[in-house]
Amino acid sequence: MIIALDAMGGDRAPREPIAGAVQAARELRLEIALVGRREIIEGELARQPHRPAGLRIVEAREVIAMGDSPAQAVRQKRDASTNVAMRLLKNGEVAAVVSAGNTGAVVASALFNLGRLPGIARPAICALFPSTEHGVLVLDVGANADCKPSYLVQFAHMGSTYMERMFAIPRPRVGLLNIGEEEKKGNELAQEVHQKLRRTHLNFIGNVEGQDITRGAVDVVVTDGFTGNVMVKATEAVLDFVFSRMRDIVSSRIQYQLAGLTLRGALRDMRRRLDYSEYGGVPLLGLKGIVIVAHGRSDAFAFKNALRTASEAASSDLLSALTGLPKK
Amino acid sequence: MIIALDAMGGDRAPREPIAGAVQAARELRLEIALVGRREIIEGELARQPHRPAGLRIVEAREVIAMGDSPAQAVRQKRDASTNVAMRLLKNGEVAAVVSAGNTGAVVASALFNLGRLPGIARPAICALFPSTEHGVLVLDVGANADCKPSYLVQFAHMGSTYMERMFAIPRPRVGLLNIGEEEKKGNELAQEVHQKLRRTHLNFIGNVEGQDITRGAVDVVVTDGFTGNVMVKATEAVLDFVFSRMRDIVSSRIQYQLAGLTLRGALRDMRRRLDYSEYGGVPLLGLKGIVIVAHGRSDAFAFKNALRTASEAASSDLLSALTGLPKK
Repeated sequence: MIIALDAMGGDRAPREPIAGAVQAARELRLEIALVGRREIIEGELARQPHRPAGLRIVEAREVIAMGDSPAQAVRQKRDASTNVAMRLLKNGEVAAVVSAGNTGAVVASALFNLGRLPGIARPAICALFPSTEHGVLVLDVGANADCKPSYLVQFAHMGSTYMERMFAIPRPRVGLLNIGEEEKKGNELAQEVHQKLRRTHLNFIGNVEGQDITRGAVDVVVTDGFTGNVMVKATEAVLDFVFSRMRDIVSSRIQYQLAGLTLRGALRDMRRRLDYSEYGGVPLLGLKGIVIVAHGRSDAFAFKNALRTASEAASSDLLSALTGLPKK
Repeated sequence: MIIALDAMGGDRAPREPIAGAVQAARELRLEIALVGRREIIEGELARQPHRPAGLRIVEAREVIAMGDSPAQAVRQKRDASTNVAMRLLKNGEVAAVVSAGNTGAVVASALFNLGRLPGIARPAICALFPSTEHGVLVLDVGANADCKPSYLVQFAHMGSTYMERMFAIPRPRVGLLNIGEEEKKGNELAQEVHQKLRRTHLNFIGNVEGQDITRGAVDVVVTDGFTGNVMVKATEAVLDFVFSRMRDIVSSRIQYQLAGLTLRGALRDMRRRLDYSEYGGVPLLGLKGIVIVAHGRSDAFAFKNALRTASEAASSDLLSALTGLPKK
């Protein structure tokens, strides 16, 4: 089984994806196809302490930039690394794709090259929020700014299946992101989705709010892509803000500096664990193929974990389980 | 000028609101009407080190509980402290109301007893996010789950006026909470509001995201009450989570405990500053009267600051400035 890695995607590409691939090949014995410009990939590989077996290069001459329009990039840059990786997946040459590139373009490329699973109206981008061991899967966090109620019901089915297969949770608890516990709470969309979710066979636990996510009272949280995206970015911004303020405090006085040195490793560890995006990549759900999105900021460690996630998803029966979902 | 304080409102009522009123009366020389059950308020006042001039009690026999339906509580508990305080404001006996009670009930009571400002379709609940000196005003954060585009334009006008009058910001930068910078980004509501805001005379800087808020690139952020409420609660939950994890780390090893002791005061200070709700209460905008909402968790310090905010708002020409806003 081979995993395709978009070697040109991410703020720190090509160095970090390639370093991550080297780690994953060595430590996890994964076979990885590095997709991108051959000479750049070769150059980066030459910088690595050694070149493990299991790595190959698939040439892709173009790169989708962060500022490119997703729809245009997919159609006009046919030979971009993201598109080439998706075509490998489509043709069965690889079992999954990992990319930290422009998320909009990854979604567009996956839609264009792979297509949607039967009965799924819209694919969803997921985020894993820190809380319990495995985190809480939140979807959609950005693929669909306007959602019909039926989309959120499909997200619930897909998210539940993902958490069940990937984390061996027997009946994942599904919550609806809302602004109060009572079923009559929320905007029209949330109220309608609440009623629909009650009629499914999912383990629907009702409306949830921020505190329910962080205390791990739920496994899967569904929301529209607008609200989900705002939530992800706001919480990320607040985390950045807290840790940067903390650095300011620690450096402000000599006795704080000493205390900071003592706590440094533990706090950095915590910071990393809070960065939901760093511990393994998150799936794009609803597509005919396993696509794992890594955060734009990902370092080698994060890429290694995303490759692991992709390999686990591809080895499981996730895709066939997703294909057999109820369609309402 | 007298400020009415709902002495029965908040998770820590009546102790903390009353202690805050005592501090505000002593340190800020405010005149405060404590609204609630006389015997309870007298009992709490007796526990205070001394009873400053400027405090009076206005009897209200009933209390709105956190679980009460706002609409019912307002109509059926006519003698609840929140309702009595609003009637004092309506009758001109006080210049402003401060409450940390059930926010839904405070909004309902204000709407019922005071009514809306002319031309304002919906009142908005605000939050102050930490960032620059004064924070960033975000509205609506919960009064209106479903919004028409015109509501958000009104929120923008009200928020801009508030920041201009209360924080002496000449042309407050107004942003639209969205999921990308480009004007075509976002759900239908956001796209329509973007076009409308461009046609106002406000200092509209375009779409903003979480990072823009925390780095203080904007003064006023408008959004619908669903998205705003989710954002406020999620960021609050993440902050709680980070600080509780930090406590776990610090207590896990003896050398961490020592370092933690050194940093304790500074970190606690930071925590408090990050708690946007703690540093002075936030306005309900769009009503015929100054109503300041304090966070349910408020302690005496937070109540004192909320009383200060109320007094500053009442002394300014905020209400007449809000009354003269353009109506489209």
